[in-house]
Amino acid sequence: MTQPTATNQARAQDVDLTTSALKHRIAETKGKTNGHTNGTNGTNGHAIKALDASKLTVQLADPTAREVPDEATANAGDETICTDHMITCKWRAATGWETPELKPYGPLSLMPTASVLHYATECFEGLKLFRGYDGKLRLFRPNLNAKRMLMSTLRISLPGFEPEELEKFITTLVALDGPKWLPRDRPGSFLYIRPAMIGTQSQLGVQAPKEALLFITVSFMPRMDAPVGGIKLHTNPEDMVRAWVGGFGYAKVGANYGPSLLATAEARARGFGQILWLYGPEGYCTEAGASNFFMVWRAKESEGGQLQLVTAPLDDKLILDGVTRRSVVELARKRLAGEIEVVERKYTIDEVVEADREGRIVEAFAAGTAYFICPVSVIHHRGKDLQIPMGKTGEIGQLTAKLKGWMMDIMYGNEQHEWGVVVSKE
Amino acid sequence: MTQPTATNQARAQDVDLTTSALKHRIAETKGKTNGHTNGTNGTNGHAIKALDASKLTVQLADPTAREVPDEATANAGDETICTDHMITCKWRAATGWETPELKPYGPLSLMPTASVLHYATECFEGLKLFRGYDGKLRLFRPNLNAKRMLMSTLRISLPGFEPEELEKFITTLVALDGPKWLPRDRPGSFLYIRPAMIGTQSQLGVQAPKEALLFITVSFMPRMDAPVGGIKLHTNPEDMVRAWVGGFGYAKVGANYGPSLLATAEARARGFGQILWLYGPEGYCTEAGASNFFMVWRAKESEGGQLQLVTAPLDDKLILDGVTRRSVVELARKRLAGEIEVVERKYTIDEVVEADREGRIVEAFAAGTAYFICPVSVIHHRGKDLQIPMGKTGEIGQLTAKLKGWMMDIMYGNEQHEWGVVVSKE
Repeated sequence: MTQPTATNQARAQDVDLTTSALKHRIAETKGKTNGHTNGTNGTNGHAIKALDASKLTVQLADPTAREVPDEATANAGDETICTDHMITCKWRAATGWETPELKPYGPLSLMPTASVLHYATECFEGLKLFRGYDGKLRLFRPNLNAKRMLMSTLRISLPGFEPEELEKFITTLVALDGPKWLPRDRPGSFLYIRPAMIGTQSQLGVQAPKEALLFITVSFMPRMDAPVGGIKLHTNPEDMVRAWVGGFGYAKVGANYGPSLLATAEARARGFGQILWLYGPEGYCTEAGASNFFMVWRAKESEGGQLQLVTAPLDDKLILDGVTRRSVVELARKRLAGEIEVVERKYTIDEVVEADREGRIVEAFAAGTAYFICPVSVIHHRGKDLQIPMGKTGEIGQLTAKLKGWMMDIMYGNEQHEWGVVVSKE
Repeated sequence: MTQPTATNQARAQDVDLTTSALKHRIAETKGKTNGHTNGTNGTNGHAIKALDASKLTVQLADPTAREVPDEATANAGDETICTDHMITCKWRAATGWETPELKPYGPLSLMPTASVLHYATECFEGLKLFRGYDGKLRLFRPNLNAKRMLMSTLRISLPGFEPEELEKFITTLVALDGPKWLPRDRPGSFLYIRPAMIGTQSQLGVQAPKEALLFITVSFMPRMDAPVGGIKLHTNPEDMVRAWVGGFGYAKVGANYGPSLLATAEARARGFGQILWLYGPEGYCTEAGASNFFMVWRAKESEGGQLQLVTAPLDDKLILDGVTRRSVVELARKRLAGEIEVVERKYTIDEVVEADREGRIVEAFAAGTAYFICPVSVIHHRGKDLQIPMGKTGEIGQLTAKLKGWMMDIMYGNEQHEWGVVVSKE
């Protein structure tokens, strides 16, 4: 039969589809003329509008309509309590990003056929707004979240954008709602910022959506970093893994979360806080729930016996490149040099079991925006508990506490540091 | 330190979390008293209402408000055109299923913090309504879709239900909208039915949603079963796999779809219709896009040389238990016994390449509700095209045509068969 032209082309240029697809998506990010005609994006060579924070329109809520609850009340119910405003921005493949809107927080309207409701065309970010002990409002390394959001949107076939524009939206929103919802008399408190993007095209065909919506909300979130007795981890059931090589474990896409809830709910019913996700027949330790995971242990005597801070590596793309994870690694390398060796490598649950048996485990903690730095007290694996030391007070190990303290000092303004970005002087 | 009680319990009963979680979810399906206290479901022992189609309330749309477009027009735009009505039903963990509603098709309202928009707590089904050549409206084995929907909802931590109730909803909806939207003068045509369930709780905590919505729409869908020249498949990029053992490839959850769109869009830009998803270093053939995949080949002479219909097995839970797949397997076993051997087993792309080299490939096709039975003409793998025979006419192979014909006869009433369920006599 006749050989179709497209196939001939493909033979001539048998490049990697992933690399090529990302390249096309990234080109769109720039908001320039789009000559790529893959049928899922702007197709006809005219200018496609870039995401532009300077175009933001503002419709304010009545500031007296809602009172700010105290932290305990805000987090007591089944519903996440958001602040007065949100930012939304629509995108269409043919024309690009529309005018962004800052407006009162409220429901979204989606057709039942919207892509996101069927095909998980969705991704998000999570970061916090901190009320410092010096009275200032700060974000923590928001540029990293904005960049990661772009990576996630591209992976899940949603439109690109300049990360700086997303950062501007975040800053604008928290500068508006922060003073009221995170008042000066609550130093040491935080709000949670959730940028998200969803595919909104009303189309049941399985394809990259031609319409999308970026939205950003700010809300309360419970403190999860110091559960009484530490967090207890349960390794995943043998028939359930979180992510896999060639998958999307490194991207903050919805598809990494929903499928993990079943095992997590069951672990919680049994008194555990999170699943410790192992990977492969080797049982590599990857993440603790939706957080990164760190072990502090002494290497075997035969390997030198030095104190090590160990965490899974990023290079196989199984785990999220967490902002907290990265900051812990950087702080430890800088401030604990000579005292502790920071090791990013694959390590197995058997190594953890062996270290436990040999009394080499010093501490362990989960690290992420939601759980912050949360000491781990137990790892339950295949019928056995490993007890992890929790320091002299039984609340937190010494090294975990030191790292956590440094991070909090930056977040809450006890230390002036480039990672702590002041957003409003009020 | 003190050993927490929950951990002691877990040690005593170190059952598989998955099995246990599914058991709890299935118990809820019955709508009986719920004594399971995992914090994500009804918790206090009172009765939880089951999904009950007999409670359906009806609010009719103005039947003259919208005209029925012809098939070509209906499928020409970027938006899926739905019929006049939809069915929705809300669920709350504490109280169970609420009163189901049949009402005019229209938008859903979701808070920006709704679970489905962040954590992909979503699943769906797809089936068709057929207008028979005998004038009757039929569904094809809807009980299989309803059962699979339950399996998917449980896997993605959404509430259970009796599959028969979902089937009743479907029948009621198409009995109402079918006569108008799939008129008697369009025999041999179909509409597409999409039941879906989403997590609607407005809660950013990563947890099984305590509120959900079931909804069912009916829409047009393009015919995709006979692309000119057959469908051309491109094997997946080496750094991207669709599903994995221990994952959820067997469930019809959104998380299987969004992440696949990137590679699919790029393949389409290069003239291919779908990705042929390979698995593992061995390169096992699993699915063609979101369809199942069948090869017809002659076994090696050394293995007997018989004609075989080969498709991936279900037991490792990598692929969807497709209704079309299952029906093809059953029909071939029954009606082609002695003529062709039906083999459900793992087979690799290297076996396909070898069969091609040795001239043993007879036909290949994708099988699913959307693509129905779609002849495959090319498999592009690592820079090379395998040409798949397409029969004397160049449109469809003989065996593929025979199987497809039998299926169509049942769907469109040329053959009276228990799989073709008449829904309305009008």
